[in-house]
Amino acid sequence: MKKQNKKKIINDPVHGFISIQSELIFDLIEHPWLQRLRRIRQLGMTYLVYPGANHNRFQHVLGAMHLITEAIKILKTKGIKITNEEAEATQIAILLHDLGHGPFSHTLEKFFVQDLNHEEISLLFMSELNKQFDGKLTMAIQVFQNEYHKKFLHQLVSSQLDMDRIDYLCRDSFFTGVSEGVIGSDRIIKMLNVVEDQIVIEAKGIYSVEKFLIARRLMYWQVYLHKTVISIDQSLHQLLRRARYLLSTGYELQMSPILKFFLQNDIRNCDDLLADSQFRHSTVLELFARLDDQHIYYSISEWTFEQDRIMNFLANTLYNRKLFRIQIFPDYSFFNQDKIEQIKHSIRDVMGFDADEITYIFTSDIVSNKAYDSSKDNNINILMPDNSIIDIAKASDISNVSVLSNTVRKYFICYPKVFSIIP
Amino acid sequence: MKKQNKKKIINDPVHGFISIQSELIFDLIEHPWLQRLRRIRQLGMTYLVYPGANHNRFQHVLGAMHLITEAIKILKTKGIKITNEEAEATQIAILLHDLGHGPFSHTLEKFFVQDLNHEEISLLFMSELNKQFDGKLTMAIQVFQNEYHKKFLHQLVSSQLDMDRIDYLCRDSFFTGVSEGVIGSDRIIKMLNVVEDQIVIEAKGIYSVEKFLIARRLMYWQVYLHKTVISIDQSLHQLLRRARYLLSTGYELQMSPILKFFLQNDIRNCDDLLADSQFRHSTVLELFARLDDQHIYYSISEWTFEQDRIMNFLANTLYNRKLFRIQIFPDYSFFNQDKIEQIKHSIRDVMGFDADEITYIFTSDIVSNKAYDSSKDNNINILMPDNSIIDIAKASDISNVSVLSNTVRKYFICYPKVFSIIP
Amino acid sequence: MKKQNKKKIINDPVHGFISIQSELIFDLIEHPWLQRLRRIRQLGMTYLVYPGANHNRFQHVLGAMHLITEAIKILKTKGIKITNEEAEATQIAILLHDLGHGPFSHTLEKFFVQDLNHEEISLLFMSELNKQFDGKLTMAIQVFQNEYHKKFLHQLVSSQLDMDRIDYLCRDSFFTGVSEGVIGSDRIIKMLNVVEDQIVIEAKGIYSVEKFLIARRLMYWQVYLHKTVISIDQSLHQLLRRARYLLSTGYELQMSPILKFFLQNDIRNCDDLLADSQFRHSTVLELFARLDDQHIYYSISEWTFEQDRIMNFLANTLYNRKLFRIQIFPDYSFFNQDKIEQIKHSIRDVMGFDADEITYIFTSDIVSNKAYDSSKDNNINILMPDNSIIDIAKASDISNVSVLSNTVRKYFICYPKVFSIIP
Amino acid sequence: MKKQNKKKIINDPVHGFISIQSELIFDLIEHPWLQRLRRIRQLGMTYLVYPGANHNRFQHVLGAMHLITEAIKILKTKGIKITNEEAEATQIAILLHDLGHGPFSHTLEKFFVQDLNHEEISLLFMSELNKQFDGKLTMAIQVFQNEYHKKFLHQLVSSQLDMDRIDYLCRDSFFTGVSEGVIGSDRIIKMLNVVEDQIVIEAKGIYSVEKFLIARRLMYWQVYLHKTVISIDQSLHQLLRRARYLLSTGYELQMSPILKFFLQNDIRNCDDLLADSQFRHSTVLELFARLDDQHIYYSISEWTFEQDRIMNFLANTLYNRKLFRIQIFPDYSFFNQDKIEQIKHSIRDVMGFDADEITYIFTSDIVSNKAYDSSKDNNINILMPDNSIIDIAKASDISNVSVLSNTVRKYFICYPKVFSIIP
Repeated sequence: MKKQNKKKIINDPVHGFISIQSELIFDLIEHPWLQRLRRIRQLGMTYLVYPGANHNRFQHVLGAMHLITEAIKILKTKGIKITNEEAEATQIAILLHDLGHGPFSHTLEKFFVQDLNHEEISLLFMSELNKQFDGKLTMAIQVFQNEYHKKFLHQLVSSQLDMDRIDYLCRDSFFTGVSEGVIGSDRIIKMLNVVEDQIVIEAKGIYSVEKFLIARRLMYWQVYLHKTVISIDQSLHQLLRRARYLLSTGYELQMSPILKFFLQNDIRNCDDLLADSQFRHSTVLELFARLDDQHIYYSISEWTFEQDRIMNFLANTLYNRKLFRIQIFPDYSFFNQDKIEQIKHSIRDVMGFDADEITYIFTSDIVSNKAYDSSKDNNINILMPDNSIIDIAKASDISNVSVLSNTVRKYFICYPKVFSIIP
Repeated sequence: MKKQNKKKIINDPVHGFISIQSELIFDLIEHPWLQRLRRIRQLGMTYLVYPGANHNRFQHVLGAMHLITEAIKILKTKGIKITNEEAEATQIAILLHDLGHGPFSHTLEKFFVQDLNHEEISLLFMSELNKQFDGKLTMAIQVFQNEYHKKFLHQLVSSQLDMDRIDYLCRDSFFTGVSEGVIGSDRIIKMLNVVEDQIVIEAKGIYSVEKFLIARRLMYWQVYLHKTVISIDQSLHQLLRRARYLLSTGYELQMSPILKFFLQNDIRNCDDLLADSQFRHSTVLELFARLDDQHIYYSISEWTFEQDRIMNFLANTLYNRKLFRIQIFPDYSFFNQDKIEQIKHSIRDVMGFDADEITYIFTSDIVSNKAYDSSKDNNINILMPDNSIIDIAKASDISNVSVLSNTVRKYFICYPKVFSIIP
Repeated sequence: MKKQNKKKIINDPVHGFISIQSELIFDLIEHPWLQRLRRIRQLGMTYLVYPGANHNRFQHVLGAMHLITEAIKILKTKGIKITNEEAEATQIAILLHDLGHGPFSHTLEKFFVQDLNHEEISLLFMSELNKQFDGKLTMAIQVFQNEYHKKFLHQLVSSQLDMDRIDYLCRDSFFTGVSEGVIGSDRIIKMLNVVEDQIVIEAKGIYSVEKFLIARRLMYWQVYLHKTVISIDQSLHQLLRRARYLLSTGYELQMSPILKFFLQNDIRNCDDLLADSQFRHSTVLELFARLDDQHIYYSISEWTFEQDRIMNFLANTLYNRKLFRIQIFPDYSFFNQDKIEQIKHSIRDVMGFDADEITYIFTSDIVSNKAYDSSKDNNINILMPDNSIIDIAKASDISNVSVLSNTVRKYFICYPKVFSIIP
Repeated sequence: MKKQNKKKIINDPVHGFISIQSELIFDLIEHPWLQRLRRIRQLGMTYLVYPGANHNRFQHVLGAMHLITEAIKILKTKGIKITNEEAEATQIAILLHDLGHGPFSHTLEKFFVQDLNHEEISLLFMSELNKQFDGKLTMAIQVFQNEYHKKFLHQLVSSQLDMDRIDYLCRDSFFTGVSEGVIGSDRIIKMLNVVEDQIVIEAKGIYSVEKFLIARRLMYWQVYLHKTVISIDQSLHQLLRRARYLLSTGYELQMSPILKFFLQNDIRNCDDLLADSQFRHSTVLELFARLDDQHIYYSISEWTFEQDRIMNFLANTLYNRKLFRIQIFPDYSFFNQDKIEQIKHSIRDVMGFDADEITYIFTSDIVSNKAYDSSKDNNINILMPDNSIIDIAKASDISNVSVLSNTVRKYFICYPKVFSIIP
């Protein structure tokens, strides 16, 4: 059999051509666990608001890897020493950094695996892969965990100005069509440098970084925390919560068997994930690696025929895009408790639900965002013309980065449109 | 309840903002049958080759409607009479023109409904919708069927230079990242005019049309008939053929019940579609309106655990992207029959299949494309400076459009990589 | 002679196709005074820093007119009454709004005509044109001067969010390649509305406006007030000041006769402009309408051979791009007076200039910018969901627009590189 | 004095950031002869038809150098040996390849220097520069002249698919806004390879090359040979021919002295260029290096006031954009000789010109274009999957490249609009 050419080029509408830099990386990309990311949309059900937002995590990790490759090229031209092995390890670290995402992660993080966030699950996958690849991923894992002695490599993978964020902002803007989120990734990357083992931005790039922070904030409010997106997330979360509850009572649901496994079992930590699932000859982790968007979508599709009225109602809400109304307030004081009670009453009266059941239908919560965290260790440092290094929040005399450090909170209530009351 | 604002604007990364022009159109877009198109990818599994190609038919029909709106605006500034009612009817005709697509239409057209192409099914959906909307779609249906007296409106919806094609070329280029397919839709639309009830292109637009034809041909060979895409289509088609066969023998398959319905029943024509399915209180058409990509994806996912070795093999081929090798030849004479027999033998020997079973694993067929059909009634007419009208294939003294009228055929064989023989 | 088709379409790389909306507008565009704007670069000598910045004011006024056309279309779909005559008047007002610009306006405003800014000269040109066009521009002039009763039309032409600014930001970003300045002009225009005869932005557009303000500020510091651009401006200004001085002493300079006219005569106000120049049978205004970039460039080219050492030095500085060093400080206190004296001394010593002559070679000044002026009458108003209208600086709970209202000042010194002293 | 950082980045709106790769290249770019290219528009007066076409040859040579840099990077990843010295030599060869262009080269090639084309003059400039730079350009000159032993380096600089052509197509499309000319330069460059010391395109790139050839042909007919552009070229050429004639009779013209020098002296070959001009202490070559667009524009501006009626008429034609009518025919037989005589008569009658004078006002000629020259040595070679190499005209079974090899000719007549006769 002819030896396969593994120096592939992949068409990416966002960055153009993405070159695969090594055979190991090619083999990792071909691995089913990576391929699975093709079946997990980057932005969950946001495509119900922005019809173009159908891009998946597979595209994202390729894009982030591409940016790492570009960043390393630039740093090397500036005299920063990075060996080929280190370059590959850093590329792999970002390629694998999202393996631990389940479907609809933003909504369902810690729903299927209760004590672990997606980064911890990613690390577990990397460790397993490292066994399959005879230890070739050891350095990548060190970079990912910030245990490698060149700390700046980790910062390319994970920090307030990492290639992960730069890629997802570019990509989410591109596919949603929200042009406000477009950033000059090229220019930011050209301005990267390393001083005392830390990634810094050369002073000429200060406006680009500022624009990046602003774009990020705008994307939060226009896309990630768009009110209709929050409404969708609420419905999805309550629907799965109801399914888990019904299954716990012995109720039978027509649905994907793998999704059912995760709703019926109490998976909490690494030990649980590494255990034998006693289902399809798989460990729990292997089952998790089979769980993707389509199991949820398929199950929702089936649930639109459910007897249970809450399941049926929520499933049809999502399936036919008859979304819940959401109202947002800057403060709790804005909530009109009388009106809220009125709405709950009318839901109860019309649908005949009890106090517990109504919690699936009427929800209330907080969302918040902070564009820049100046307190964290990983603040964004600017290399000034006099070679001093200062935090971007202080670097720019014309800056308003400090304003971006404020946390903005919003309060919302969410309920079916049919029950809304004319104000 | 506050009256809903239906003059919505939708973000489209391809055309920018798309404005919904009327309340009727808004209500149609909200209809579950339109929303279903969100769950049918425009290019099927092409995303396994071009990772960005995750866009769906919902985006496409909105885009095509937008281009119709733009085209009508231009024609009106040139003095062509189009009433508001006619404009809306034409917008609706194109909005609904793809309703009849099932999942993976390019591969599976006539697989689920054997005697009808997707346009005939679209018409059936439109008729049903017309009942639901109290006859408001009558003119749209006339335009769609070319029964309306202003024939040029139909040509905007369906001809060799219709807004359907212009949108899908733009869109497929955009999402695949194949920049060769980018066309200047703006310029083509600006050059539209109507003479003697026919759409014509003003002479200044001749290069743009030529580029459109060339782009279309390039997209055929680079995307629609990309060899890996053909290989995927073959695997998918054989997988579903096998499933249908196994079900016919009474074999039990874990899969989507709706998909199972279509594999177990012999649905051929409009009468079959309008009949009661005796399943979930639905007509067959209503079930068809529930059949979308996710039922196929979910079933494939389940079949990766199948006992039947053909099912298991083909399902894993697609699920884990271990795709079949495909070899393409310009002519039958290129087939090396000895080698083909060798390959079949080795498949048989290793997997132990009989002659019938091997037809799922080793396939051979023809694909063809003609960029421009100069014989058809709906050829592309150019309005010359002296007001004469001639076919584009003759209009341009510098043209090579005539070359584009040739049908190009390619012959291929397709089989698992593991069985390929070193040449 | 065949009647000319005046419904032309113009290719614009920024906005696509620009349609000329009426015969009157076509005739105005053909007028030599409009055509002259082709010979005045939008950004003067900025192309010495950003090589792509060769676009001219002719392109800009066409682009701004195009945006006005789009804005009026949108407003009309929202029920705002605008007659065809008013639409044309507003288009003409913006088409002509830059007629009064001379070459290198940003540097040389009030240099050739000492008491008038370019808007006042534009008005004078419009009045003259109105005579030539039999009073057809009367309404356009009313709109331009804010004397027309529908005040919102003037705001489209001139305000803090007018189509002038939107076009030049888009255009200058496009041609400089500074992607940070790209704004979503489409989205802003889609969000325009009129309440109580005032242009407002619908609340959904608040992020777009914020981005516009930020982009504007970034463009100021990255392009319009880029330090090298300031350095160039200084050299150009001093060169022409020296020429004027030498001519006043009777010194002969090889140069453009029209430029010489303006350096030798004391033109101050409208009366001066309307007077007979006694040169080439032209009024002074007609001569001004002949003065464009090429007269300056040609004269600089000749002056590179000048005997006068200051002329020769400054002309070669610009012609051969041997630009002056510029140093920028946030405050006067940063100036090191000793070092400044040292630099001046060394210029004096090497070149042998006296105290007066050195003012052409060593300069010092302030530049400032305020992104948003919240005190002005023409602040940007947001139409909130509850139909109240508030200033953008107050509208956004997540906003940092208030920060943008601060005036930022920078102090600089500028002198030949050869005289800089190692710090 | 602080050592200057010469690793500059230049913003290019077409390719993004262009990095200067070495100090020598930086110094060459700073040289007045390179800087002069800023004053020569790439497309002459085409901006009178496409208002955005103000880009100059300086931008183009930087862009072409950037593409060479990218191409060399790609070739090196494919194992092609290119030393740093060879890379720099190739970059320099293309950076300097247009030095020999005078103003409006396409119209005025061989007008100022009668026996040399621009490439021969470029070579002369390079030789002079090589002296100034102590022989550091020797290898670059070898590459430029195809005398270096690695022939493929020359092909990157000059062949039917060189970086010169790729850059100017991209650039001219970008600035004119003619989107039909956009090509995927990225993809073409990614497909480059070298076999037997020849540049080849890998088979996957065949569509991209085909699109490149088609785009090139479209750009010829839509831009480079656009009828109005030809009309402008005719007027400019006749105007300068008239000026030369008048000067030869001793007539005095107000104009640029350097332009006058070239009209009054008979400069034919390298010896003439290297001679002392006896004007401004310069060699003729040094004067040529001062001749740029602005000398022509300034002189045209002055000539609008000329007494000579032909000068005055042609100068105003260009200055105020009152362009001549042009009529184009596929063949001589289409010329209506009677009508032509009628037009000439009416020019003569109205303006009172004699037979000789009328040749400045009424012109007739041929333009032609061949998109691909399959006969030349430098044809475009495709590297097939079986490692054979064939001409693109034969490589593609679906190709129409052979059609592109035909020479297309067009015949035209050109004369003032006022004299046109109603057909």
